[in-house]
Amino acid sequence: MGMTGKVGQVDAAVRERLLTAALELFNTKGYASTSVREIVAAAGVTKPVLYYYFGSKEGIYLELMKGCHATFEEVVSRLATFQGKSSERVIQFCEGIFDGVVANLPVVRLIYAIYYGPPQGAPHFDFDQYFERMVEIVGAIVEEGTAKGELRQADVKVVTWAFIGTLNTAMEEQLCHKEPRISRETMVRILNLIVQGIAAA
Amino acid sequence: MGMTGKVGQVDAAVRERLLTAALELFNTKGYASTSVREIVAAAGVTKPVLYYYFGSKEGIYLELMKGCHATFEEVVSRLATFQGKSSERVIQFCEGIFDGVVANLPVVRLIYAIYYGPPQGAPHFDFDQYFERMVEIVGAIVEEGTAKGELRQADVKVVTWAFIGTLNTAMEEQLCHKEPRISRETMVRILNLIVQGIAAA
Repeated sequence: MGMTGKVGQVDAAVRERLLTAALELFNTKGYASTSVREIVAAAGVTKPVLYYYFGSKEGIYLELMKGCHATFEEVVSRLATFQGKSSERVIQFCEGIFDGVVANLPVVRLIYAIYYGPPQGAPHFDFDQYFERMVEIVGAIVEEGTAKGELRQADVKVVTWAFIGTLNTAMEEQLCHKEPRISRETMVRILNLIVQGIAAA
Repeated sequence: MGMTGKVGQVDAAVRERLLTAALELFNTKGYASTSVREIVAAAGVTKPVLYYYFGSKEGIYLELMKGCHATFEEVVSRLATFQGKSSERVIQFCEGIFDGVVANLPVVRLIYAIYYGPPQGAPHFDFDQYFERMVEIVGAIVEEGTAKGELRQADVKVVTWAFIGTLNTAMEEQLCHKEPRISRETMVRILNLIVQGIAAA
């Protein structure tokens, strides 16, 4: 029993080392230019170890993508349960996604590089589902808020994208700037201002 | 004189054909994977013709980047002269930038691929200046609008990014989606809603 536990831990540690090494190489050299040889060298293991756990370079990439998506779903499920005024719930949701992105910058960077970058031969992964899910959740909160009379009667899609546009831009600032022009605090101030409106009362 | 004019036209046409071929190859294969040989073959000229006009692959890339920036500056100078209420001026500005992006999608796609993509060895070009300039212009309109009492007293940066975040997200939707989730019309509706506020009156 003790032995099995220890082997399990060793397994998990080796797996994790391979994933971390692959992610770093994919980000610094690009997915296409990274070889299995480089990944195993960086992780301090041999090729058969990578093949055993992940099957191939494609396999380790998809594992990174699935891991990121699982983390996202965890965060999102937690965030969807908040109570309170609809505008506060939307802002809390955006804060949670923002924190999730900041805690997982390397994998988000890789997603952006694959999404916007040149074709690199990476296997397909549906990145649009991230935004679709966020639009779905924020949309549901907005709909509830409108029904309760907390939010202005307006097209749910339009209201939802007003929030999501700010979240999206704040996230992107964290990805690409050593000194992001939008901090978490600034994002929250923007979102609050959107709720209140920009026109003088 | 007539001859010189004709030669000038031929020159311009060849130059344009090389730029178009390079842009298409950089977008479909990636900058790093595109060779001078492929560019000249696609443009129907010989290597010395490319070297004559642009010096190198780096040279033709920088010419594309400078051309895009020059177009942007033209558009931006025109947009900055609009008169009217500050919120209308901001919205007109966003419409103009949106139209400029849609009219120049291939080069904007290349910029995104270089900015977010893996390192491809492309020579440095300062992409941040695009956003800095937009923030500068929208910021100036917001400041004026606040001074005139048209806009709520609030941090200029916060107000500016509320608008820019929507513009940014709308632009990105045009880049990556065959059926963008935000049309020009939806963008304008979002911006108007941000002006009015989302909270029920």
